[in-house]
Amino acid sequence: MSRPMTLAEKLLAAHAGLDEVVPGQLVEVTVDVALGNDITAPIAIKTFREAGVPTVFDPAKIALVADHFVPNKDIKSAEQAKLVREFAAEHGIVHHYDAGRMGVEHVLLPERGIVLPGDVVIGADSHTCTYGALGAFATGVGSTDLAATMMTGTTWFKVPESMKFVYKGERRRWVMGKDLILYTIGDIGVDGALYRAMEFVGPVIDTLPMADRFTMANMAIEAGGKVGLINPDVVTLDWVKGRSDRPFTALRSDPEAEYVAVREYDCSRIEPQVAFPHLPENTRPISQVGRVPIDQVVVGSCTNGRLEDLAVAAEVLAGRKVARNVRMIVLPATPRVWTAAMEKGYLRTFMEAGAVVGPPTCGPCLGGHMGILAAGERAVATTNRNFVGRMGHPESEVYLANPAVAAASAVLGRIAGPDEL
Amino acid sequence: MSRPMTLAEKLLAAHAGLDEVVPGQLVEVTVDVALGNDITAPIAIKTFREAGVPTVFDPAKIALVADHFVPNKDIKSAEQAKLVREFAAEHGIVHHYDAGRMGVEHVLLPERGIVLPGDVVIGADSHTCTYGALGAFATGVGSTDLAATMMTGTTWFKVPESMKFVYKGERRRWVMGKDLILYTIGDIGVDGALYRAMEFVGPVIDTLPMADRFTMANMAIEAGGKVGLINPDVVTLDWVKGRSDRPFTALRSDPEAEYVAVREYDCSRIEPQVAFPHLPENTRPISQVGRVPIDQVVVGSCTNGRLEDLAVAAEVLAGRKVARNVRMIVLPATPRVWTAAMEKGYLRTFMEAGAVVGPPTCGPCLGGHMGILAAGERAVATTNRNFVGRMGHPESEVYLANPAVAAASAVLGRIAGPDEL
Repeated sequence: MSRPMTLAEKLLAAHAGLDEVVPGQLVEVTVDVALGNDITAPIAIKTFREAGVPTVFDPAKIALVADHFVPNKDIKSAEQAKLVREFAAEHGIVHHYDAGRMGVEHVLLPERGIVLPGDVVIGADSHTCTYGALGAFATGVGSTDLAATMMTGTTWFKVPESMKFVYKGERRRWVMGKDLILYTIGDIGVDGALYRAMEFVGPVIDTLPMADRFTMANMAIEAGGKVGLINPDVVTLDWVKGRSDRPFTALRSDPEAEYVAVREYDCSRIEPQVAFPHLPENTRPISQVGRVPIDQVVVGSCTNGRLEDLAVAAEVLAGRKVARNVRMIVLPATPRVWTAAMEKGYLRTFMEAGAVVGPPTCGPCLGGHMGILAAGERAVATTNRNFVGRMGHPESEVYLANPAVAAASAVLGRIAGPDEL
Repeated sequence: MSRPMTLAEKLLAAHAGLDEVVPGQLVEVTVDVALGNDITAPIAIKTFREAGVPTVFDPAKIALVADHFVPNKDIKSAEQAKLVREFAAEHGIVHHYDAGRMGVEHVLLPERGIVLPGDVVIGADSHTCTYGALGAFATGVGSTDLAATMMTGTTWFKVPESMKFVYKGERRRWVMGKDLILYTIGDIGVDGALYRAMEFVGPVIDTLPMADRFTMANMAIEAGGKVGLINPDVVTLDWVKGRSDRPFTALRSDPEAEYVAVREYDCSRIEPQVAFPHLPENTRPISQVGRVPIDQVVVGSCTNGRLEDLAVAAEVLAGRKVARNVRMIVLPATPRVWTAAMEKGYLRTFMEAGAVVGPPTCGPCLGGHMGILAAGERAVATTNRNFVGRMGHPESEVYLANPAVAAASAVLGRIAGPDEL
């Protein structure tokens, strides 16, 4: 019988064909999904072509998603999207997404059942860790690594140590997965989980909806985590149901597994959080943000562009108006999210409030397009990074928050929680 | 009693305080609306500031609309929008539009009743001629001219000669204002009306809805026209009703007025038109386009981004799918158009068909953003110009058409009319 293992260890062992693995061990694993986007896939494709390998390892296990600069922002992005499109056609890539079959990669792949519990996923995008919410070992890699996996279907990892984060108590009103993960990053810092598997557990996680779980796993990388994992449970399996015919094995950590560290949080003490510039660890509870006037609000991204996120923003905005000097931009993360948000009346609420509803693109999150900041401007964003110049000019500022805070801030023209309305 | 005058002459005479004017005469006129956008207003504003004039002539008669690159495409466009925003605040500009109070200028201004019949309008944008559909003398000027008018409230013109275009017969199914104007430009060429007032008359115009009239006036500049005019009638006055409290005088050409040329068209012989690269005059009837595969379809712009345009595109797309290799991008021209298209179910139709619905921006029309073409790519667009590189790479191609042809082409993946579906 093998030693008790964490979820991260179990996933790697299963994909390495080993009974057990230990932290620090180098393992070669099979990859269930290899992902590239419109920025990274072109580089991977060039490397792939230079290697002279005739075919990809499995055209059904590669996902190529144009989401950062689509609809094409400029000639360069048009050429990138074209290169990916031609490669996808040439190799019969099953999961190729581009306008109008577009969408933000990390929302799209789970939505379409392309990633499932028990998978190992690599993606040439740092927020590939999002899929950890499904109980998949999912992590960002470089474009060259992606190219190699596209050839071989495998990759190698050093088995990470695991950290356990236990969320207890009662979630307060307006506190979402975004706040739990921001609070956690505020606690341990942006390198607090460097090359470690972050495992999110506890009674609060047990009742946390999938949308919030995705948000938490998504931002594991912002604490340096290799992966951010949630053990699959009935919530996971319910959510996954009907999305794919592909068989999967939902693994869970052994109760006696070893963690390099355990952090426990009493959620009844956690308010909505705001990460101040220029690091996600610069968190403050909403009650202590002070008076910070803003110019722009963005609701969207792989972090908070899901239907549940838009529902919260719409709830806060309903019957209210975006402040005169604020541009509010809402970017539903996929066409399905977009259409569902329309059917549920959220888009009407946004438009009536004076927000702009855009297409399913990453847009301004990475300073791509669709809402770039000028010098001196401040944005509240439901996105994942607030580094210097992340959303535009190096002298602009990004404040990370959940969709409720973002919407309330849009109305008041300053960073604010919905209770202030 | 003055000599009989054309509409163009009457408008200029009225604004010059003269009983009559003759073609070739230089006149100084008062300006009812002076318009700048996010590209041109910053230049005008710099000129204005350099002149040291403390105030604008009338903050209610200046319209500043950010529409080309909003939501901000990049840092440069963010800085431009910011400069305009600050100027608007400083001078109390009443009609300042920016995300989310955004929209394509030439659809927005008539919609909000900012331009009315009888007006003289200058705009630092070539498609300012759009307002001629209301019976306004409206024309594009340079940014420096805009700056001067912002100071003085006046400008000067050489009174243009007038050309009369008479549209008779029965409009065929799927033939829109776009086809009439493309046919006209195909007939007279891109300099066929150079510095002339184009006046569109006849029984077909009398029953033409305002949306189609705007499309025709919009493209007068594509034949070199100084203005494109339609005499205000009951259709105009019905449309204008309730949009503004500002008094206006709807002028009409005198029946005996002199025209430098008269062209007559039998509309029963006019098919939907497609303007081939790289000039709007390269028109062909849809029956003679041959087999032209396409990569992208754009429905939107100041030419064809109105609710009626989206209605036609939705009618063609209903229950159909955009071809797998085609990206279809729909950009409703204003928030009101956007919301109305949502309420009427058009946006649902577009999404179900696999199109992308974007925000109210000029976007790809001018190669701005939101759908730029790579080398070798072809687009069918409801926009107004198909010059070399207009929508992206110099080796890309733009084919101009009406929304019905655009939608049918999206479905079939090649340029096609709706009757081929």
